[in-house]
Amino acid sequence: MLAELRGLNEECGVFGIWGREDAPQISYYGLHALQHRGQEGAGIVVTNGKGLQVVKGEGLVNDVFANNKLDELQGHGAIGQVRYSSENGRGIENVQPLVFRSTTGSLSVAHNGNIVNATELREHLERQGSIFQTNSDTEVLAHLIKRSSGSFNLRDRAKKALAMLKGAFAFVILTEDGLMIAQDPNGLRPLSIGKLGDAWVVASETCAFDIIGAECVRSVEPGELIIINDQGLTSERFAPAADSAMCSMEYVYFARPDSDIDNINIHSARKRCGKQLAREMKIEADVVTGVPDSSISAAIGFSEESGIPYELGLIKSRYVGRTFIQPSQELREQGVKMKLSPVRQVVKGKRVVMVDDSIVRGTTSKRIVKMLKEAGATEVHVVIASPPLVSPCFYGVDISTDSELIATNRTNDEVRDLIEADSLTFLSPEGMLESIGRSDTMKNCGQCLACFTGEYPTEIYTDTVLPHEKETVR
Amino acid sequence: MLAELRGLNEECGVFGIWGREDAPQISYYGLHALQHRGQEGAGIVVTNGKGLQVVKGEGLVNDVFANNKLDELQGHGAIGQVRYSSENGRGIENVQPLVFRSTTGSLSVAHNGNIVNATELREHLERQGSIFQTNSDTEVLAHLIKRSSGSFNLRDRAKKALAMLKGAFAFVILTEDGLMIAQDPNGLRPLSIGKLGDAWVVASETCAFDIIGAECVRSVEPGELIIINDQGLTSERFAPAADSAMCSMEYVYFARPDSDIDNINIHSARKRCGKQLAREMKIEADVVTGVPDSSISAAIGFSEESGIPYELGLIKSRYVGRTFIQPSQELREQGVKMKLSPVRQVVKGKRVVMVDDSIVRGTTSKRIVKMLKEAGATEVHVVIASPPLVSPCFYGVDISTDSELIATNRTNDEVRDLIEADSLTFLSPEGMLESIGRSDTMKNCGQCLACFTGEYPTEIYTDTVLPHEKETVR
Amino acid sequence: MLAELRGLNEECGVFGIWGREDAPQISYYGLHALQHRGQEGAGIVVTNGKGLQVVKGEGLVNDVFANNKLDELQGHGAIGQVRYSSENGRGIENVQPLVFRSTTGSLSVAHNGNIVNATELREHLERQGSIFQTNSDTEVLAHLIKRSSGSFNLRDRAKKALAMLKGAFAFVILTEDGLMIAQDPNGLRPLSIGKLGDAWVVASETCAFDIIGAECVRSVEPGELIIINDQGLTSERFAPAADSAMCSMEYVYFARPDSDIDNINIHSARKRCGKQLAREMKIEADVVTGVPDSSISAAIGFSEESGIPYELGLIKSRYVGRTFIQPSQELREQGVKMKLSPVRQVVKGKRVVMVDDSIVRGTTSKRIVKMLKEAGATEVHVVIASPPLVSPCFYGVDISTDSELIATNRTNDEVRDLIEADSLTFLSPEGMLESIGRSDTMKNCGQCLACFTGEYPTEIYTDTVLPHEKETVR
Amino acid sequence: MLAELRGLNEECGVFGIWGREDAPQISYYGLHALQHRGQEGAGIVVTNGKGLQVVKGEGLVNDVFANNKLDELQGHGAIGQVRYSSENGRGIENVQPLVFRSTTGSLSVAHNGNIVNATELREHLERQGSIFQTNSDTEVLAHLIKRSSGSFNLRDRAKKALAMLKGAFAFVILTEDGLMIAQDPNGLRPLSIGKLGDAWVVASETCAFDIIGAECVRSVEPGELIIINDQGLTSERFAPAADSAMCSMEYVYFARPDSDIDNINIHSARKRCGKQLAREMKIEADVVTGVPDSSISAAIGFSEESGIPYELGLIKSRYVGRTFIQPSQELREQGVKMKLSPVRQVVKGKRVVMVDDSIVRGTTSKRIVKMLKEAGATEVHVVIASPPLVSPCFYGVDISTDSELIATNRTNDEVRDLIEADSLTFLSPEGMLESIGRSDTMKNCGQCLACFTGEYPTEIYTDTVLPHEKETVR
Repeated sequence: MLAELRGLNEECGVFGIWGREDAPQISYYGLHALQHRGQEGAGIVVTNGKGLQVVKGEGLVNDVFANNKLDELQGHGAIGQVRYSSENGRGIENVQPLVFRSTTGSLSVAHNGNIVNATELREHLERQGSIFQTNSDTEVLAHLIKRSSGSFNLRDRAKKALAMLKGAFAFVILTEDGLMIAQDPNGLRPLSIGKLGDAWVVASETCAFDIIGAECVRSVEPGELIIINDQGLTSERFAPAADSAMCSMEYVYFARPDSDIDNINIHSARKRCGKQLAREMKIEADVVTGVPDSSISAAIGFSEESGIPYELGLIKSRYVGRTFIQPSQELREQGVKMKLSPVRQVVKGKRVVMVDDSIVRGTTSKRIVKMLKEAGATEVHVVIASPPLVSPCFYGVDISTDSELIATNRTNDEVRDLIEADSLTFLSPEGMLESIGRSDTMKNCGQCLACFTGEYPTEIYTDTVLPHEKETVR
Repeated sequence: MLAELRGLNEECGVFGIWGREDAPQISYYGLHALQHRGQEGAGIVVTNGKGLQVVKGEGLVNDVFANNKLDELQGHGAIGQVRYSSENGRGIENVQPLVFRSTTGSLSVAHNGNIVNATELREHLERQGSIFQTNSDTEVLAHLIKRSSGSFNLRDRAKKALAMLKGAFAFVILTEDGLMIAQDPNGLRPLSIGKLGDAWVVASETCAFDIIGAECVRSVEPGELIIINDQGLTSERFAPAADSAMCSMEYVYFARPDSDIDNINIHSARKRCGKQLAREMKIEADVVTGVPDSSISAAIGFSEESGIPYELGLIKSRYVGRTFIQPSQELREQGVKMKLSPVRQVVKGKRVVMVDDSIVRGTTSKRIVKMLKEAGATEVHVVIASPPLVSPCFYGVDISTDSELIATNRTNDEVRDLIEADSLTFLSPEGMLESIGRSDTMKNCGQCLACFTGEYPTEIYTDTVLPHEKETVR
Repeated sequence: MLAELRGLNEECGVFGIWGREDAPQISYYGLHALQHRGQEGAGIVVTNGKGLQVVKGEGLVNDVFANNKLDELQGHGAIGQVRYSSENGRGIENVQPLVFRSTTGSLSVAHNGNIVNATELREHLERQGSIFQTNSDTEVLAHLIKRSSGSFNLRDRAKKALAMLKGAFAFVILTEDGLMIAQDPNGLRPLSIGKLGDAWVVASETCAFDIIGAECVRSVEPGELIIINDQGLTSERFAPAADSAMCSMEYVYFARPDSDIDNINIHSARKRCGKQLAREMKIEADVVTGVPDSSISAAIGFSEESGIPYELGLIKSRYVGRTFIQPSQELREQGVKMKLSPVRQVVKGKRVVMVDDSIVRGTTSKRIVKMLKEAGATEVHVVIASPPLVSPCFYGVDISTDSELIATNRTNDEVRDLIEADSLTFLSPEGMLESIGRSDTMKNCGQCLACFTGEYPTEIYTDTVLPHEKETVR
Repeated sequence: MLAELRGLNEECGVFGIWGREDAPQISYYGLHALQHRGQEGAGIVVTNGKGLQVVKGEGLVNDVFANNKLDELQGHGAIGQVRYSSENGRGIENVQPLVFRSTTGSLSVAHNGNIVNATELREHLERQGSIFQTNSDTEVLAHLIKRSSGSFNLRDRAKKALAMLKGAFAFVILTEDGLMIAQDPNGLRPLSIGKLGDAWVVASETCAFDIIGAECVRSVEPGELIIINDQGLTSERFAPAADSAMCSMEYVYFARPDSDIDNINIHSARKRCGKQLAREMKIEADVVTGVPDSSISAAIGFSEESGIPYELGLIKSRYVGRTFIQPSQELREQGVKMKLSPVRQVVKGKRVVMVDDSIVRGTTSKRIVKMLKEAGATEVHVVIASPPLVSPCFYGVDISTDSELIATNRTNDEVRDLIEADSLTFLSPEGMLESIGRSDTMKNCGQCLACFTGEYPTEIYTDTVLPHEKETVR
């Protein structure tokens, strides 16, 4: 589905590497593979053992490193980030990795996630004299590490600091000596480590390993702190693993189909969800079509199980970028399309099953249903490969607040009528869990269902603000 | 498949509109829908009845018209072009539409195709004192129109000029008074006219109509000259229709799946080709995958007919643009991917049917087969949704010369061994013709099979140079 | 003075070189030195003996050749142009050098000047079947050369074509074999040839020779056609030399102070004009200041002769470029300056002599007088180092039509009152002629005074349109 | 003289405004007037009373705020900076104003100068847990303010923090409530306040007031802290005024000729220095010329006093910007010029007095002498309008270390021989002091002569590193 049309976005993707002279180049290709996780900013920080060099900017990876900017970086260790930013987090100063310079050694941090007690920690730190240069949660961790009292070394200070954080986080930290990698105790955000020859790599998604020819070794464990340096990899715990709660939306929408999370392939999981949908609801129809790109796998699955032919009923333009001139409201009302067009001959006179991954505000679904009917579809049956979204996310997914979620406090029929579909089917929570199959493959390993159920795997602090409110503070 | 990896490209896409005050804006969105036909240059020429205004440049439509360039254009009539350029035709002076200014009225021309007697006509014109500012065939038409002797009006001069051209062409011409639209007598290049309210539109593909909310009226007929002005549309003939010979590669590879050519939908035609392939060759396999994007439809068809499940076995990066930094040869050998990555868990331990639309030099096919095997595929069966390419194209498709076509003078087994596949199947010419189905839908309406058979629908002039030789002249 | 504030601009500067492998690089630096003659477009065409390569674009030389564009050019012969463009001549298609391709040999032309019978010649050529792609006079010459009948060689065809042109022109033509250089029979536009080692160079101003380390050999003579090729330089005449009539505004305003025209240095000529002014009019004042940059030399001369101290009373910003955000009308009224600021402490309480090179519409003069008075000047005496401008120029200088020239049909006192100065003095025509001193140094060598006197050195054709009317045709 | 050719650069220019709705626009024009003080980065931070908005970037003011970036800023208070950066301080994170966000109120700081005890303070702060994100001294002040203990308000905390700083500084600080402005106790850097209607403005140079139509009120006093908010302006002291020691190089080279520092106009001061030189040394010569732009005033003075005519003997190109392609070493040796060209006819056969403002390494002087002689000057007498530079600057002027200063440990004759001049004259320190005339106009008001004498007006801390060593740390 079209993320930008409905405010369902994640914070970012992170990457790291230690032990190769071409670390900056490898990071570039790694970030490139993660570009779908954030298109508004990108950066790479590199060390050659003496100091940190940084190149970052707003825009796509390609643009940030154009004009020979990549050549400015040299070193054997690097971290990088691609960034989606809410209104609140715009501006070059919020582009990561952040760099903290010190006479006793510099530090750079890249982060994916959301710290729910960030405001509380920040106020606490400010009362002690810390000052902040960004709006980002990421800066909190750096201050906590720096302030950690006692005669601890960096590793111990990092563990102590990480233990103070609540929420969802995947951190990749670069020093002049090595990498530190950490995941929150619930494992809410994906993070995997791999090997590229003798070098270690780390990435939000395994598709970054495939593009650079690296091999995935394993996921970072909930509550684990991994240190990688010239002596190799060591693993420690900064917290006991809590109940595992991987974000469901990674499987449903965010991750690339060629990535695996905890050894479960995304495309395959989505296809199984599509098949399960076909088992949960029998629909009389002529063609099945998916809303490109993220719903294609589920649509294929639905077709395979239901026996209804799979067709390309909707085409997405590949050329709508930053410089695309948006059609005026007037032109849009006259039918000028932006990103999606229907394939008239495929849907004309047909009963169409339109598979999508999720519904947020419903405006896009309504638009696509209308588009298909105007192209001649006699019926449009909307089939959603996940349960209804009813609760906000506090862990970094930019889902609108309850009041904007079409499914909150509405019956299935009410939503169906609002989007003007002939029928509307959501995947059952049980069906989703079983189709994704985390419980089958991994012991004690679950999924976060908070946006579907309102039950949050972590404490939600009194100072946790809703994402939407946060945005309008400014 | 990945056009840029193998030298299979077409010349361009053209668009025109007459009768709306937002003609420049509509042209922008129309060209946007045709962007896949050419990414190296774009331009729009507009008239408000007095003179012609032009904006053009190298690069994508978005980039050429960024920075408020579109706002510079105002008028109720417009034509535009997106351009692929061979080495020979680079440079801003070759970006179309070309503009010819005259004290008796200006003229602008956008063209898709290739004039096989261009060199002969050019030499003839030069001997009479004409001078040329571009390398493009398009300029020849303007000179012929201008020089046409007798007391003819513009319409008659255009007809006389068009009748002198041999080859493949779809012309859209703008004057201060209206549009002139012409297609070659064999109808080798697609060109359709439509209506947008009271205004007339014309485009290389019908997907340009869908994106602007226009309705397709019909194809331009072979040998037809259409004049559109404030008095409406009139149709004349500059030549009798010869045997219709629409370019097969339009169905196979060039056109967007949501376009129709002569009322036949591209996606549906490709899917039927895939089904036919499954009927022509039974393969024992576990999964079917298509090489994105142009082979997806055929792969779906093959899966549907064969009963072998369809999967996303290959993922194409959406972010490889002009500013992408190509990996060094060294990195590429180490496994750094550029545009395509395999989905490891989908193909690992599987017998894979890999569907592609065509094979040119075979290097890309070999690369993908290797990539799939390295990802764990136990067998890779390459299935091509068109017959073997064995002859060069003289009509504007930038297919390499015979010597570079892997299938020329080689047996099927030899080609299979070169690309290191476990089996290789091409679609039969008869199977392709029947699957596309032009003979069924239109009387006296055929397809150009020259690149598969070496039989050309038009005379090939002695001065017609091979595309490749043309390139090296410079 | 500030050309852009008042519509006094010339068409361009041209450069050429033959006989060095670094011809493109040398041309780049040569054009750089001529940048003051045109900032709206630049181009270089190069030959290595086989075909012509071209890079051109809108904007400054630096911008057009940025991003390694210069590296695309290789060859031992080259011509280039920098271009000022009137409204009528905007657009990339008008950027020179123009290139004309032919199977019998290509041709590229760069031009500085204005052909007064261009419209007549153009209509004549169009009636014979020629078509034009630009609005530029330059294209006319190429057509005339091409159409020249008989069995003549290129040199003879060029002579025949040049003889048909009336007006002001300095042409530099590149073929695969050499350069052709021509100046109109009145020598209205400056053009000099020089040597750089064994190579020949040609440029609109000698400052281009200094920057590349070349030596000036001589001016191109009125009516002369120079051919430079591997055999060396030969000189011929295409017309007898008429009365020499070098454009006065070159000495007054256009040329760089370090250039020489016909061996007369521009700075020195301007300084002599300033001295002459001081002799023609005694003024009681405290300080002399010039309006930067073109009036500095005259101000120095005035100070030296009058004994009144020379001061920097006005400073020009060096950073007002294309991307500068113009202040809103409101801000401007509140006193926000754009390009010029007064030096308060220099003029406060002082009687100021403000030296400028010329007055066109008078609005800028009025603004500067006001600015000086607001900064505290008690009196402002405006002293102009040329006679009053009263007639339009038909030779390529973009002076507004009579009706916009403040001095047309007004007495000296009326103009003085309009610009709110305490006194106003123009240099006498005789004083200017004597100060510049052409008659002293060169036999039979005069100056064009048409814009001061209305007496034109050439026939003015009935079809010659006024520059301003030309602009509004579009 | 040509700063970039010799490593004589200052840190930056600062600007601030409080009390107008067009504060961002005014800041833009103010920074524009200060552009000569730093071309490598620019930024503006704005407040509308709630939070701070920031736009900054690398490059010129025009470029940073192009593409409607200025429109993103809205508010009635603003500060800005233009930045020169040493190798050590490159990168977007070092572009000022810096922003420090806090739940109790945000703070933005722009700075011109150098804190000599920065390293010591930084280490002290880090030991207390502060972390730094930039290499800049500016960040130290923010931390000191934040950490200032006790129940003080912001004003008192700022005073306490400022009192801990040693060195040269001019700070402009923006909060949501107002501006804070401070100058070091020696007044080493210029900083003036003015009024624009009811609004207050502050700038490094008064030329920024002239361009926006504001009136200069007075200089900020050494050791003064000025607070400007909606209640108006209040002045306090954070330190007693030490011996005033305004940087001499501001008068000699940095400041714009139309600026006044402590009521002394820069152009006039420079002209007096030139006159003084003519009194100190009689030279037999034919022409006087200045090295543009900063030496023009002194050259005019020298000419006026000596009676030797002033001429434009050297011309500076206005078009050498960021995208200029530097000539190769080979081309440079062949005589291709970059920024300066001689005016051949002015200097040929003449004895030339070449006036420059200062000599650093001497390489540029040598180049210019050579250029003049090659252009035909029979003698070149170099006259420098300041004393010899012999000691490094610790206050933010990027003068090379002693070992690179040509005058260190060399006699006047030795330097003269190295630059191959016929004579070399420096202005005496007494002559300079008297010509600038600070002691005449202001009580207890002196000049810093450290770079000429090695006597520093402040303590130089043991941790103060030489500028050059600083650069190579990275």
